[in-house]
Amino acid sequence: MSVIDKMETENESATVDRQFLERFLLGKWADIRLASRELAGRPEMQGIPGLTKDEHRARVLEQLKLLVQNGQVNLSFPVEFGGKADHGGNLAAFQELVVADPSMQIKSGVQWGLFAAAILHLGTKPHHELWLPSAITLETPGVYAMTETGHGSDVSSIATTATYDEETQDWVINTPFRGAWKDYLGNAALHGKAAVVFAQLITKGVNHGVHAFYVPLRDHDGNFFPGIGGEDDGLKGGLNGIDNGRLHFSNVRVPRTNLLNRYGDVAEDGTYTSPIASPGRRFFTMLGTLVQGRVSLDGAAVNASKLALQIAVTYGNERRQFGQAGQSETVLMDYQRHQRRLIPLIATTYAQAFSQEVLLEKFDSVFSGADDTDDNRQDLETLAAALKPLSTWHALNTLQEAREACGGQGFLAENRLTALRADMDIYVTFEGDNNVLLQLVAKRLLTDYSRKFKDADTGTLARLMMEQVTERAVTGSGLRRLGQNVHDRGSTARAVNELRDPEVQRDLLTDRVETIIAEIALDLRDAKKSGTEAEVFNQKQSQLIEAASAHGHLLQWEAFTDALSRIEDEGTKQVLTWVRDLFGLHTIEKNLSWYLIKGRLSAQRAEAVTAYVDRLITRLRTHAQDLVDSFGYGPEHLRAEIATGIEGIRQEEARHHYEKLAASGTAPVPEKH
Amino acid sequence: MSVIDKMETENESATVDRQFLERFLLGKWADIRLASRELAGRPEMQGIPGLTKDEHRARVLEQLKLLVQNGQVNLSFPVEFGGKADHGGNLAAFQELVVADPSMQIKSGVQWGLFAAAILHLGTKPHHELWLPSAITLETPGVYAMTETGHGSDVSSIATTATYDEETQDWVINTPFRGAWKDYLGNAALHGKAAVVFAQLITKGVNHGVHAFYVPLRDHDGNFFPGIGGEDDGLKGGLNGIDNGRLHFSNVRVPRTNLLNRYGDVAEDGTYTSPIASPGRRFFTMLGTLVQGRVSLDGAAVNASKLALQIAVTYGNERRQFGQAGQSETVLMDYQRHQRRLIPLIATTYAQAFSQEVLLEKFDSVFSGADDTDDNRQDLETLAAALKPLSTWHALNTLQEAREACGGQGFLAENRLTALRADMDIYVTFEGDNNVLLQLVAKRLLTDYSRKFKDADTGTLARLMMEQVTERAVTGSGLRRLGQNVHDRGSTARAVNELRDPEVQRDLLTDRVETIIAEIALDLRDAKKSGTEAEVFNQKQSQLIEAASAHGHLLQWEAFTDALSRIEDEGTKQVLTWVRDLFGLHTIEKNLSWYLIKGRLSAQRAEAVTAYVDRLITRLRTHAQDLVDSFGYGPEHLRAEIATGIEGIRQEEARHHYEKLAASGTAPVPEKH
Repeated sequence: MSVIDKMETENESATVDRQFLERFLLGKWADIRLASRELAGRPEMQGIPGLTKDEHRARVLEQLKLLVQNGQVNLSFPVEFGGKADHGGNLAAFQELVVADPSMQIKSGVQWGLFAAAILHLGTKPHHELWLPSAITLETPGVYAMTETGHGSDVSSIATTATYDEETQDWVINTPFRGAWKDYLGNAALHGKAAVVFAQLITKGVNHGVHAFYVPLRDHDGNFFPGIGGEDDGLKGGLNGIDNGRLHFSNVRVPRTNLLNRYGDVAEDGTYTSPIASPGRRFFTMLGTLVQGRVSLDGAAVNASKLALQIAVTYGNERRQFGQAGQSETVLMDYQRHQRRLIPLIATTYAQAFSQEVLLEKFDSVFSGADDTDDNRQDLETLAAALKPLSTWHALNTLQEAREACGGQGFLAENRLTALRADMDIYVTFEGDNNVLLQLVAKRLLTDYSRKFKDADTGTLARLMMEQVTERAVTGSGLRRLGQNVHDRGSTARAVNELRDPEVQRDLLTDRVETIIAEIALDLRDAKKSGTEAEVFNQKQSQLIEAASAHGHLLQWEAFTDALSRIEDEGTKQVLTWVRDLFGLHTIEKNLSWYLIKGRLSAQRAEAVTAYVDRLITRLRTHAQDLVDSFGYGPEHLRAEIATGIEGIRQEEARHHYEKLAASGTAPVPEKH
Repeated sequence: MSVIDKMETENESATVDRQFLERFLLGKWADIRLASRELAGRPEMQGIPGLTKDEHRARVLEQLKLLVQNGQVNLSFPVEFGGKADHGGNLAAFQELVVADPSMQIKSGVQWGLFAAAILHLGTKPHHELWLPSAITLETPGVYAMTETGHGSDVSSIATTATYDEETQDWVINTPFRGAWKDYLGNAALHGKAAVVFAQLITKGVNHGVHAFYVPLRDHDGNFFPGIGGEDDGLKGGLNGIDNGRLHFSNVRVPRTNLLNRYGDVAEDGTYTSPIASPGRRFFTMLGTLVQGRVSLDGAAVNASKLALQIAVTYGNERRQFGQAGQSETVLMDYQRHQRRLIPLIATTYAQAFSQEVLLEKFDSVFSGADDTDDNRQDLETLAAALKPLSTWHALNTLQEAREACGGQGFLAENRLTALRADMDIYVTFEGDNNVLLQLVAKRLLTDYSRKFKDADTGTLARLMMEQVTERAVTGSGLRRLGQNVHDRGSTARAVNELRDPEVQRDLLTDRVETIIAEIALDLRDAKKSGTEAEVFNQKQSQLIEAASAHGHLLQWEAFTDALSRIEDEGTKQVLTWVRDLFGLHTIEKNLSWYLIKGRLSAQRAEAVTAYVDRLITRLRTHAQDLVDSFGYGPEHLRAEIATGIEGIRQEEARHHYEKLAASGTAPVPEKH
């Protein structure tokens, strides 16, 4: 350690400006976030542990009405419907609701982010006028009936059909078998009065692919209309405030005009028309609104991680256990293991908070129309698909690590962590299963990669690809600067100094993405020749997911680095630079074997990575409380007994007791003395 | 891959003998396990999802009475109390109960494994006669009052006092401050009528350390006796069928003879005596019975993992999603990612099942008195402390991975996984926090290590240690045989052939434990000189835990390898050898950077590890169902809708629908055609 210590040139006494940092983290939609947090801090908006499923569902429905009353739900809708058309602000506000009750958040997402948004984005003016107002006011609680028992992430294969009947000018919605039942739908079990049903549109004997239809579900008494049936999904691992359920349709008829016809329409005579000629592109355009859900979940997950860390670090800074004889017991946060388990999670949460902001701004630029190009939309979808998996998995890891770090306390409902984890669990597989999303990202990376070489003839292509795979370590500018080789015997201090260079971190992170993608591209190229492309693609599935994750980490690192450039306060900038370095190097550390095998890091440099990660963690230990307090949650959001300072009071009381006892002269003498 | 294929000499068509394997996995106490499974399969013994906390607690109390009626609880008690004194059998039976309801299992553990067992092991004949019968019959539901709010794993620092009053010949039990309240105690909130209370024994002004006292808690109406108070721990993240609570004592008096006096007694005049002179050794002897809990949890965790894998693999072999155009959709288990996420977990579960059996046999040999030496007892404690953390963490990982692999289905209560995970969560921090237990293991490894060199002078010692750290790669017999170096350009086939050699696997796994321990020992030796031992110990905390985990993996690998030697059926032996190789090499793969940095594996060999792990996973894919079915759980244990074959029926129905439609000639034509 001493070598590293000597080499440091940074201001070791730097501290963060708490007030500045808290505001900085709130980002572009700071005021909207604060207003939403204020709402989320009200008891009537919050979950109550231990409610039965039915009580919880009823409570959440009432909370949705309060959201309407508070104008919370209008942000994304057009001005003519009383909205504010503030797309970024809408999601920022939505993301903050997770700290009140994820059930309430997700049920509101079903109502306004899916059901009403589908009417808005997939429907046209008559639909908006007819159905949007009652959807916005919750007069019509609605269902977004896309997923089927037999088809989750693979929406294009759903089996529900909507067949046009020219005679009656009706759509006939039908569920052909059990696997085609709509499933896991919020509002379906109980409250939904209407649904946007996704079905294969069939007219004149042709299947035009998946389209959306507005279908009334239940009458005023809550009974299904004829031909409609359903089931309650029952108790779940979490989110039990939402009435998820199943729906099926037996030749249910709705008028021709109930087709949400923005991207595809059928004339009275059954003729199909669409402004988008390619069925594939039409499908992805219609599904494009789903990106809103992914952007939302990314932000909600980051907020859940923040909450967990604020609770665990606060407790870890008060609770004492074990220690050396004759001294007061050691504060948990002073244990190296405790630091190692929590501080890198703080760094990752910061990186994700900054990348979430980048994602949200991109979302806003597309959905507001400010920069709604095909390219930007595709970039948005790729970015969301890369970040949502990483942040939702991170939230589960963080909640679990926080729970374990708090020991038995972490398991009590009064300390919040377990129920929050149970609720967040489904975030990793809904709105796009994480593994499926990452494969979409990888496919995009492969496409971009092959585009780069599109003008090269195949011989040149192969040579270029091969060079990328094998030679980047030597030719890459950042890595060459490392000047290392496998026999590297340079000083640890020099190695650490280089690892602190952001260009070196960027190069190491970039190299991993590009090399894995290049390797897969090379294999796929060979496989194409032999007609085994699908097989090879399946064999490379884990590597594709690795590459996409690495890409996501790079994006997070870039977002963090970019945020640093906007910080003027020197102390904050210094501390957050350490946090960024920790994020970057800890990410590299987790993939150290890759860097070693590929010759990107010598054994000696690899050890320097771990040594410097350890050093950064030790250094950030004193800043841990500031870093989590800057997330800005108050007691009304944390709602964890152990984060109220109560443990500090208990420790003080115990210390006082023993001091008084010692002073009294009546303290029992230990037997061994 | 082709290189590897060519080199294979094993019987690729080997299959397991299901019936044999199922019986083999049941181990030494097969019949007792089967009887306990039969009991666990009865509806009245099982949890019902969605019960309120109060309903669940009431149900579990009734289930404990059923355990008494079924004679389930007598196994561990002496013959004179109607027991069978079958210590290993008792824990085997107990471990199986987890599949009925972990709440029921753990509450029974509190009653018989902790409360009654403390009377038995820490008390003497008069105590047994007085209190054991009503504890065994559940006439006296009891509390094991050890943990305090301020002291969990650090039992020796608990603050509750039991001060001897010579005049009245009473013990005065007292809670001096809030942090000293007993906490998280099963049976404390509601049902407990008496408690074994752990407190600092003080007599004649001397504190003789922690001892156990029998303290009546509540009268027949359930009211606390004077001086006793408590609180309900309320809702928890899981195990809500147990009434965990807090207790505090305000100068509560119990007779002198209520001290459970096997390891320490006080005469009428207040004179303290003990058969164990050293207070430290006495403390650890009294806590020795806690090992029973750790052995139990290890087995219960393995069973939970088995259950999760049997559910997920069954569903993964039926459910189809995506796939190539014109073909039926792909079965989930055929996806490389799905294989990579589940099959290594199967391998680890097998390794843990075999090591659990070793642990249980050792436990039985000590507790039956067959081999109750100090050394064997210490080995038992180290083994339990090494295995319980690995299996309980593995259970959480496995349940989560299974849940995600089943997508939305995995989140429904009807499919079992989420509630089981919620219940198992606390297993990683109770009965010894996993991180604390692993540090105990590491300390033992350090002690053993320094003993090895105890006769060497310090110069020799330093040289020997240094050699161990730096030279083992060259001198170690197994590794020398690998004949590799950093510039290794040998064939992958040869590398794989070597990795398949069990001696090579053993050497690689052993080397990691020994080298990390030697490194820490060296650092501690230097620190001792400079008086910074405690500080350095803290800096090395993560490495200590790493070493202990590595030691645990080695023990699991050895247990697996030993089990293989007892299998005669060739097919089963071959398939399980692949499973063992997968466990060993996947463990090495997870620590690949260590092997690379230390020069134990060249980059080329490291790549061969991954290549062969991939190959083993692909090969085991066809055996996955057999391997999980051999865990032997029936539908009455799985109780997961998706593991009933229902998805296969749904797939069949869908296939049939499309075939009929195609045959009818009325199938709609896709637009793009």
